Amino acid sequence: MRGSGVREALVRAGVLLLHERGFNGCGVQDIAVAAGVPKGSFYNHFPSKEAFGVEVVERYRQEHTARLAVLADISIPPLERLHRYFRSQVDTLVEWEYRRGSLLGNLAAEMSDHSTVIRERLAATLSAWSRAIGHVIEQAKAAGEISSDTAADTLAAVLLNAWEGAVLHSRIEKSRRALDAFLDTSFTKLLA
Amino acid sequence: MRGSGVREALVRAGVLLLHERGFNGCGVQDIAVAAGVPKGSFYNHFPSKEAFGVEVVERYRQEHTARLAVLADISIPPLERLHRYFRSQVDTLVEWEYRRGSLLGNLAAEMSDHSTVIRERLAATLSAWSRAIGHVIEQAKAAGEISSDTAADTLAAVLLNAWEGAVLHSRIEKSRRALDAFLDTSFTKLLA
Repeated sequence: MRGSGVREALVRAGVLLLHERGFNGCGVQDIAVAAGVPKGSFYNHFPSKEAFGVEVVERYRQEHTARLAVLADISIPPLERLHRYFRSQVDTLVEWEYRRGSLLGNLAAEMSDHSTVIRERLAATLSAWSRAIGHVIEQAKAAGEISSDTAADTLAAVLLNAWEGAVLHSRIEKSRRALDAFLDTSFTKLLA
Repeated sequence: MRGSGVREALVRAGVLLLHERGFNGCGVQDIAVAAGVPKGSFYNHFPSKEAFGVEVVERYRQEHTARLAVLADISIPPLERLHRYFRSQVDTLVEWEYRRGSLLGNLAAEMSDHSTVIRERLAATLSAWSRAIGHVIEQAKAAGEISSDTAADTLAAVLLNAWEGAVLHSRIEKSRRALDAFLDTSFTKLLA
């Protein structure tokens, strides 16, 4: 494998492993084995596991941005578009049997206090995600689907808070109950 | 230190360390050092670090149950009582400068997929917490403070989802923004 191939294999393996086991739940050795590269090559590409973590968050952001594309489909009314996006996220979590959860949320819980560079990358990711959601909420307000006076960016923030908590609780309960409560109750009440 | 003193010192140190660093972010050695006991004594009291984690969750549940006592003060109207409880939780997180977050949420993110016994203890803790909140919501409904037809246990669940997500996002942002959005917007809209 050439240098860029090794790096790519490490980042791809890292997104999966950090999602499944957490930052401290897997070592550089595990990541190298999963990537099928020699352990020694890790430090040819990343100065530290922390720097690697930043790359993993960045890759996750890119992949998640692709999933956000559905939010731009203006052939669907804004609120329905937003609800479909979350339904598709729920489908993924159900398919995973409530494992893994949100890589952003997991790394936030585990690393926010221990790595400024990872935390800052998480903050940028959350902010971009919130803006994308807020943009659709603006459209829903303009279309008269939401009558609330609350600013769209605040509604986006509280919707994402509700979502992250629901994901966490679905993992504790190993059930879709919290996810359905998000879709049926939180979504409706927060965006009334 | 006698046997029960050692065990108690380990559990107390564990609640602090697991909250600050996560389950995989600290080792048995760190816990023993923080407790001021020899590392070897750990395994005299706990068959495994996982079994110790269950005890830490149980201790956290007991301590948190004490904080829930304020919810029983019927001299205060139900919704105000509930809002005060969350304001006091916010005050603690601000005092901690948005570090640590929720031990329940952190262990859920890190351990739900990797330890059935820890996950089951987290589920029991979440369930008891949700029932305590649901009980006050029932009272708020009976008092006419909430007009929603949604069942009290569902409202309690979505409120706690919103809360856990807000705690997580306050840690990413190292700011009270998400916590204030919970108090000012999520709380009001979910319990309308």
